[in-house]
Amino acid sequence: MAKAKNKQLKELTTQDALLLAAERPRALRNYLRKLHASELCTLLLGCRDDDERLVLLERIPQMQRGDVLLELPEGMQEDLLARLAPSEIEDVLEHLDSDDAADILQAVDKEVADEVIERLEPEDRRGIEALMGHDEETAGGLMQAELFKVRSDWTVEKVLVVLRRFGHEIENLNYVYIVDDNGRFVGVVPLHKLLFSEPEYPIAQMVKGDFPVAHAGQDQEAVAQLFEKYDVLAVPVVDDDGMLVGRITADDILDVMQEEATEDMYRLAGLSGDDDISEPVGITAYRRGVWLTVNLGTAVLASAVVAIFEGTISQIVALAVLMPIVASMGGIAGTQTLTVIVRGIALGRVTFANARRSLIKEVSVSILTGAGFALLMGVVATFWFPDLGIKLGLVIGAALFINLIMAGLSGAMIPLTLQRMNIDPALASGTILTTVTDVVGFFAFLGLATVFLL
Amino acid sequence: MAKAKNKQLKELTTQDALLLAAERPRALRNYLRKLHASELCTLLLGCRDDDERLVLLERIPQMQRGDVLLELPEGMQEDLLARLAPSEIEDVLEHLDSDDAADILQAVDKEVADEVIERLEPEDRRGIEALMGHDEETAGGLMQAELFKVRSDWTVEKVLVVLRRFGHEIENLNYVYIVDDNGRFVGVVPLHKLLFSEPEYPIAQMVKGDFPVAHAGQDQEAVAQLFEKYDVLAVPVVDDDGMLVGRITADDILDVMQEEATEDMYRLAGLSGDDDISEPVGITAYRRGVWLTVNLGTAVLASAVVAIFEGTISQIVALAVLMPIVASMGGIAGTQTLTVIVRGIALGRVTFANARRSLIKEVSVSILTGAGFALLMGVVATFWFPDLGIKLGLVIGAALFINLIMAGLSGAMIPLTLQRMNIDPALASGTILTTVTDVVGFFAFLGLATVFLL
Repeated sequence: MAKAKNKQLKELTTQDALLLAAERPRALRNYLRKLHASELCTLLLGCRDDDERLVLLERIPQMQRGDVLLELPEGMQEDLLARLAPSEIEDVLEHLDSDDAADILQAVDKEVADEVIERLEPEDRRGIEALMGHDEETAGGLMQAELFKVRSDWTVEKVLVVLRRFGHEIENLNYVYIVDDNGRFVGVVPLHKLLFSEPEYPIAQMVKGDFPVAHAGQDQEAVAQLFEKYDVLAVPVVDDDGMLVGRITADDILDVMQEEATEDMYRLAGLSGDDDISEPVGITAYRRGVWLTVNLGTAVLASAVVAIFEGTISQIVALAVLMPIVASMGGIAGTQTLTVIVRGIALGRVTFANARRSLIKEVSVSILTGAGFALLMGVVATFWFPDLGIKLGLVIGAALFINLIMAGLSGAMIPLTLQRMNIDPALASGTILTTVTDVVGFFAFLGLATVFLL
Repeated sequence: MAKAKNKQLKELTTQDALLLAAERPRALRNYLRKLHASELCTLLLGCRDDDERLVLLERIPQMQRGDVLLELPEGMQEDLLARLAPSEIEDVLEHLDSDDAADILQAVDKEVADEVIERLEPEDRRGIEALMGHDEETAGGLMQAELFKVRSDWTVEKVLVVLRRFGHEIENLNYVYIVDDNGRFVGVVPLHKLLFSEPEYPIAQMVKGDFPVAHAGQDQEAVAQLFEKYDVLAVPVVDDDGMLVGRITADDILDVMQEEATEDMYRLAGLSGDDDISEPVGITAYRRGVWLTVNLGTAVLASAVVAIFEGTISQIVALAVLMPIVASMGGIAGTQTLTVIVRGIALGRVTFANARRSLIKEVSVSILTGAGFALLMGVVATFWFPDLGIKLGLVIGAALFINLIMAGLSGAMIPLTLQRMNIDPALASGTILTTVTDVVGFFAFLGLATVFLL
């Protein structure tokens, strides 16, 4: 039944909604009130420009506006926020958790943000300012300040009494966080455990032992790995002094994981991390053009290698026919290795400790595949160009063998080296790799041909 | 402090542990008892073969064995399970939730699984058999049967009394699930809300309205999108009759998301989803070889196009030098589009409804970049080969323009078409794409050259 109800509500398209906004604003408002933030977001995404989006946004109940803005693609979010007055932004913030409020403020101009912050209650202001001090991609930037914190010398009964009085405003209250007299983090107790305990039981004795803790400065990818490793629904965040400063819930981590996976995928494909389907054509073309220019440079470099052997090619045109195969196979094999290593690093499965083993494995795989395809392509080339015969087969086989081994070696070495230099291993590694496999492929094939076939 | 403690415990390497297993088994057992499943998993991953792994696994406390097995890569998990007796597998299952137990049983031979199931208590048996009936990659395959379920006519007080008696065994008990007289799902109440309510309050009136629900047969990717959309920590699962049959928690979804992202990334790179760093070299070489063979076929096809123009190349060798640039730029631009669309489909942002808009945008972007790089490369070629002059520049410019537009068009069309045919849009789309861009690139460039330069 719940499903049927949803179906019925979802029926209005963006154009319907805009029409309703002009003709029956009150009916639209009533309709929008029943939608979930993600459904409202879909409506906004369907608009043709920011003017239309603003019309709909104004009809969305204040309680929901913040959630909707947070779900929009970053560029669109910033553009819409830029058109709201500080007082309107303040209204939006009022219905958000501190971490989300800080995210919104980080998306508006510095002066506007300062103006909004000044309008906030002193307590909210302090919380948000503390959060805004953290880099967005760290545990501190992800965490929310709202959590239920008790002293380690309390009893279960006292915890429950305080919880009943002050816990109302906290969403997803799954754990009670225990701190010592100085506010230092001691441990967590799952909420439901409180229900199973005697009232006079000391809370400190119920603390779960090996609970993971994030540090405020820790990178969000490392925090995501904590969640995966320990299968928890929230982790506490401590500062350098071990003080409990916030918590991160699993739903925020889901977003982080998707973001990080998208970023790696995009970078491997030579895309900027900000590339987005809702972005204007001109901006997308510019961003992609930057990477295509880099690729053009490396392609010209590879062609310069071919140019060295113009003389050879003019005598044996078959070489021009076959040379793309050597380069293409190297590129694909190298990309296979590169992807496994980049993803392994992101998931924490390839580390400094086992990097050598991964490298040895990848090179071994490439020796096997190299030998196999050298043989296969050697036979194909021999029969394809019978005039040149077995000698051509031997040359292309040797070139393929060399290029596939180089592909395995660089596919593993490039990301591992970037990682060691503290550069994102996905960044630019695809371009470096294909440059290597193109240059080596052409040089080995045409070079060997020059020596043995002329 | 928690961190310091962890550091100290992590110090033993796999080789140390194996040595200890032979010389001081009791000390090893005590050491292993203090480790987390993910740390034990790292130790096992460091082993050279299954024999070593079995030695360590036997020293791991029974309570932990299941969790460790579940964290191992699939192939390794199956190999180890194959070496355990049915009674040992039964011991492993005893400490697992029903969903994890079902996963383990699905990884062993059918006969062994049947033998183990017969040994279980009737109640456990029913639960696990029900779960094993679901496809592993659906909501039914992900869910666990353990949850706290109450009738909608109960009061808060009654719920709490029953919870205190029967709730002990449930992990991550964050929501109370409400069902009607027939077991049909009605709604959820967050656990902490119970603490804030009057004892005589009817639980049915506290039900949260728009809570997402998964259907047992729903694909796990769609379930993950529910979590992302609604920012919840668990969703209930219902069957076709609306009966509440289980729940899925956010920590399981984290694993699903990583898995799905890895699969897409691997498929885009021409890798089998099962490729794994811990897999033997021979198996990896075989799996990759399959994709490389497909690529060899398409590369030969592209070369066959070049072969058509052997006569042209033998007269103008500069064409052999420049032709890799046309193909390479098309491949990169197409991969950019392909990646954006494949990822957009996976994240639910590119749908049938907006597919046309995405297609129009991608083609528009490719017209812009195509024009830009046609101009740039036209100028470069004109100066690089002054003998051929502006005519060569015009030919390569036109070829690049055509190929980049084809790249944008096929980069968007291939995954959208596969999706419409209910095939994973990441599967094989990279190979199809580069075939198109290579063939079109070579044909356009060499064809135009034949017409205008000879």
